[in-house]
Amino acid sequence: MISQRAEKAERPAVVLLSGGLDSATTAAIARRNGFAVYALSIDYGQRHHFELEAARQVARSMEACGHVILDVDLAQLGGSALTDAFDVPKDRADAEMSQGIPVTYVPARNTVFLSLALAYAETIAAADIFVGVNAVDYSGYPDCRPEFIAAFEQLANLATKASVEGQRKCTIHAPLIDMTKAEIIRLGTELGVDYGMTHTCYDPNDEGISCGRCDACQLRRKGFAEAGLRDPLVYQSK
Amino acid sequence: MISQRAEKAERPAVVLLSGGLDSATTAAIARRNGFAVYALSIDYGQRHHFELEAARQVARSMEACGHVILDVDLAQLGGSALTDAFDVPKDRADAEMSQGIPVTYVPARNTVFLSLALAYAETIAAADIFVGVNAVDYSGYPDCRPEFIAAFEQLANLATKASVEGQRKCTIHAPLIDMTKAEIIRLGTELGVDYGMTHTCYDPNDEGISCGRCDACQLRRKGFAEAGLRDPLVYQSK
Repeated sequence: MISQRAEKAERPAVVLLSGGLDSATTAAIARRNGFAVYALSIDYGQRHHFELEAARQVARSMEACGHVILDVDLAQLGGSALTDAFDVPKDRADAEMSQGIPVTYVPARNTVFLSLALAYAETIAAADIFVGVNAVDYSGYPDCRPEFIAAFEQLANLATKASVEGQRKCTIHAPLIDMTKAEIIRLGTELGVDYGMTHTCYDPNDEGISCGRCDACQLRRKGFAEAGLRDPLVYQSK
Repeated sequence: MISQRAEKAERPAVVLLSGGLDSATTAAIARRNGFAVYALSIDYGQRHHFELEAARQVARSMEACGHVILDVDLAQLGGSALTDAFDVPKDRADAEMSQGIPVTYVPARNTVFLSLALAYAETIAAADIFVGVNAVDYSGYPDCRPEFIAAFEQLANLATKASVEGQRKCTIHAPLIDMTKAEIIRLGTELGVDYGMTHTCYDPNDEGISCGRCDACQLRRKGFAEAGLRDPLVYQSK
């Protein structure tokens, strides 16, 4: 018997899945919009692997048709607190967080991730790529801006066999780009995302328990509070 | 005593260095144009490693200030004769080679490579990236076209910290893009490139001896013949 999903002949889409709250919500949106999810996670030399473990769980819960975890050792290039040994900032005030580009910025990360998503999309003949970038909470990151996504889409439509052979146009979907964290959490909750599976913290302890104090934890906790929803994660600090 | 190179205060440039003839020539052009070369080679799951060994030798001979060899296992994504087990075509006629996109095409390869070059450039504060793409001999490859390079440059200028902070514009240099193979070989020879160090073959034997019959070998041999120069490489077939 052909399964219900196969009968619907869903179109394939590559979803960049970090294991965080935003990308889990993005994957749920792709499913809701009728796409078959092919998840792509990048092991880029993060200081910990809890995020990738979360990505595995999220991919399973979304019934992803494929999940590739690709090693790309960006730590070899250096330049970020997320891959190098320098300290992740904690307890920063909102005003401080919203100023400039933090040390947790990874050089050209979204350009690299989207280009790998494009390579994956080309091999599975997908014309759609989903990425959970957000310009509201990450206003300091150059590669989270709408103009960056538009430029990548333009590039994608010149970069592949499909673009030369006149097949369907490649679309980069960034459904969260204009949403606040609270809006993202509300939508994800409606779509059934289990945020207890996701990992957000830049600097968890050895058991994977979130610090609650880095920029990422603070944004997440504030988002849940503003959404009036309970964050299922446990934190080291109140 | 400060070396002559340091006195000149050369600007850094990232050069994508495969170990092939084109990228070696490109590196020599970057040096000639007064750049300090930071070479980037990608170990993307090629079927052999002779090319990367060649890249190491070429980087040394060009007095590169840095050389990163980055692992990115594109073979995990599949879709190419250069990373998968299917056969590399041999003895194809010119007319056949110039038609369509060959099986040796690697999905989105230049998009991935340029995005990694951009990440490297950002960490060393370089605003210049050199890539040896060529639209004449590789007319079938979407990501060797001038419009692709222009689109990537546009993206690069939206993707990085430097672009947000209003620093110097990022330039993608593709100096070979309109040159024939013979012209490339003549120029490289003038600039002192030792083509005996380079590796071109898609399907060498276990000792690294080039087959002489794949598309890449054929293009190279024809290029040397047209340039009226001797190819220092030894081939399995006459």
